[in-house]
Amino acid sequence: MSVKERYIIGVDLGGTNIVAGAMPLDGSREIAMQTRPTMADGGAGAVVERIAEMIEQVIVETMEEAGAKRSDFLGVGIGAPGPLDRANGIVIVTPNLGWKNFPLRDEVSKRVHLDATLDNDANCATLGEFWRGAAVGGRNVVGMTLGTGIGGGLILEGKLYHGASDVAGEIGHTTIDSTGRRCKCGNYGCLEAYASGPAIAERAREALRGDEGESILVGMVGGDPKKITAQTVYEASKRGDAVAREVVRETARFLGAGVSNLLNIFNPDVVVLAGGVTQAGDALFQPLRAEVKRRAFKPAVQACRIVPGALPLSAGVVGAIATFKMQTLGDL
Amino acid sequence: MSVKERYIIGVDLGGTNIVAGAMPLDGSREIAMQTRPTMADGGAGAVVERIAEMIEQVIVETMEEAGAKRSDFLGVGIGAPGPLDRANGIVIVTPNLGWKNFPLRDEVSKRVHLDATLDNDANCATLGEFWRGAAVGGRNVVGMTLGTGIGGGLILEGKLYHGASDVAGEIGHTTIDSTGRRCKCGNYGCLEAYASGPAIAERAREALRGDEGESILVGMVGGDPKKITAQTVYEASKRGDAVAREVVRETARFLGAGVSNLLNIFNPDVVVLAGGVTQAGDALFQPLRAEVKRRAFKPAVQACRIVPGALPLSAGVVGAIATFKMQTLGDL
Repeated sequence: MSVKERYIIGVDLGGTNIVAGAMPLDGSREIAMQTRPTMADGGAGAVVERIAEMIEQVIVETMEEAGAKRSDFLGVGIGAPGPLDRANGIVIVTPNLGWKNFPLRDEVSKRVHLDATLDNDANCATLGEFWRGAAVGGRNVVGMTLGTGIGGGLILEGKLYHGASDVAGEIGHTTIDSTGRRCKCGNYGCLEAYASGPAIAERAREALRGDEGESILVGMVGGDPKKITAQTVYEASKRGDAVAREVVRETARFLGAGVSNLLNIFNPDVVVLAGGVTQAGDALFQPLRAEVKRRAFKPAVQACRIVPGALPLSAGVVGAIATFKMQTLGDL
Repeated sequence: MSVKERYIIGVDLGGTNIVAGAMPLDGSREIAMQTRPTMADGGAGAVVERIAEMIEQVIVETMEEAGAKRSDFLGVGIGAPGPLDRANGIVIVTPNLGWKNFPLRDEVSKRVHLDATLDNDANCATLGEFWRGAAVGGRNVVGMTLGTGIGGGLILEGKLYHGASDVAGEIGHTTIDSTGRRCKCGNYGCLEAYASGPAIAERAREALRGDEGESILVGMVGGDPKKITAQTVYEASKRGDAVAREVVRETARFLGAGVSNLLNIFNPDVVVLAGGVTQAGDALFQPLRAEVKRRAFKPAVQACRIVPGALPLSAGVVGAIATFKMQTLGDL
């Protein structure tokens, strides 16, 4: 190649895994994507050490693969579970990692001698889909990541929206049933209490109660209903299990109520759903779209496509790279 | 005054009344505020004629009061019930006025020989409070107007947010009970189905059923429960009526669930509640704030003040003036 390329490194820090990789400035391709277990038990210092090793590995592989020099790397974008203090690069509190007020951005930056930025992981995942994934071409994009919890990210008028104190986008903690299930957050009837992975598994166990013989679910996990996960439910639904199919349909209805709220509030052009739940495929997306059509305002429904994420493994890293680019260069 | 002032005229078109007035470019004062009945039955042409007469009256009074010349008026901002096509200045449909695809902006502009802009009435009311009312100093502001319906407006990063097709901000039509009361919009459990004026009156009638003697509510409206309005409920609550007080407390709980959703999604610095419901005063705002504190994320609660509107009569006009200024001059 004739024009010299510059690179940005992205790190997506999760409670279970760390994913890292690089992209050229224009985001045209993913380079040296890799995953390691977080092993948060070792403490924050050990996690920073592991992140630094991964970044070094990404640099070395990118240099080999793309003929780059060390000076061609502009910096590191980091995505981490919130709440965060973005301006100061601090992770305020993360139950999954056990951190409090940890200056993650500067610890990593110091260790790898590169500039760094920090943003919320769900924000990064949404920005990744907006820049290079399923939401390309959108201007107002709502991203939802459905996993152990339900995270959310908002791209409004082409920019990540953070709110007054960096905690905007907690879509999982919007009430769809004000007198409904207690949520871990203390509120009642949060979307997350119905449609997160553990909530889906719990609803399946409730549906089975007394009728375990009617379904393949319990057999699939060796006879112990406690071992049922959302994954089991999707799998059984695909195999035609009636109980599992009803749980997936119900999930679509709950998500439909939540997504309809987002359509009526934001009038987005794209809603991207990512995370394990999207493995259910059309079994989930068809009733979900039908429920949204039934509930939301017609002009909002007409303006919006509801799609699964296109970067299941790398959205967080791609988005972390994009946040670095936006925060340091001002635009994507 | 030595420096020549320029003026913008604002028009707030409602189903019942039209309000109009003027402000100098800096929004420092309201001039020639006036109200006339809309009388939509006469058809769109007659309403435009009435608006034009009011604009002429505002111009004449402003010239007298401020020593202005006709050439000192920059144009007219119009707020109208949505959904609208802002770019083309068209009211797409308004059940209250009976209009369909009416080019309101250009009809008014032609008639008064001034430039004009058009925006949604709830957006205008929120922008009015942001520019010169209860939300001054905020950057991310959610406005709710509680009346016959529940309207919403969003100021995000200091600018009105319209969404992909100008229908963002339908806060009244977010679900707080996915299997709850049917809403006029076709959805179930919308906030509006619990906390609009008619919904408050309906809940009061339900609370009374069979126990009319326990409350002063029916007596206040001459013995016919159908005549109870939200107004009656606030008034009875202020006089200490137990049934009315419980209905107001319940209203605060429903609104609290809705406002909590907004805090968790937008992390705003201000939520402004305007409209008749705010007449309930502390009887509403105290339990509302308590419910939000109980439900929403702590950092979002800490970042946000929840306040009644400060411009009960003129927010719509002030905001229509502000939208004209923003759309033509690019900033407030």
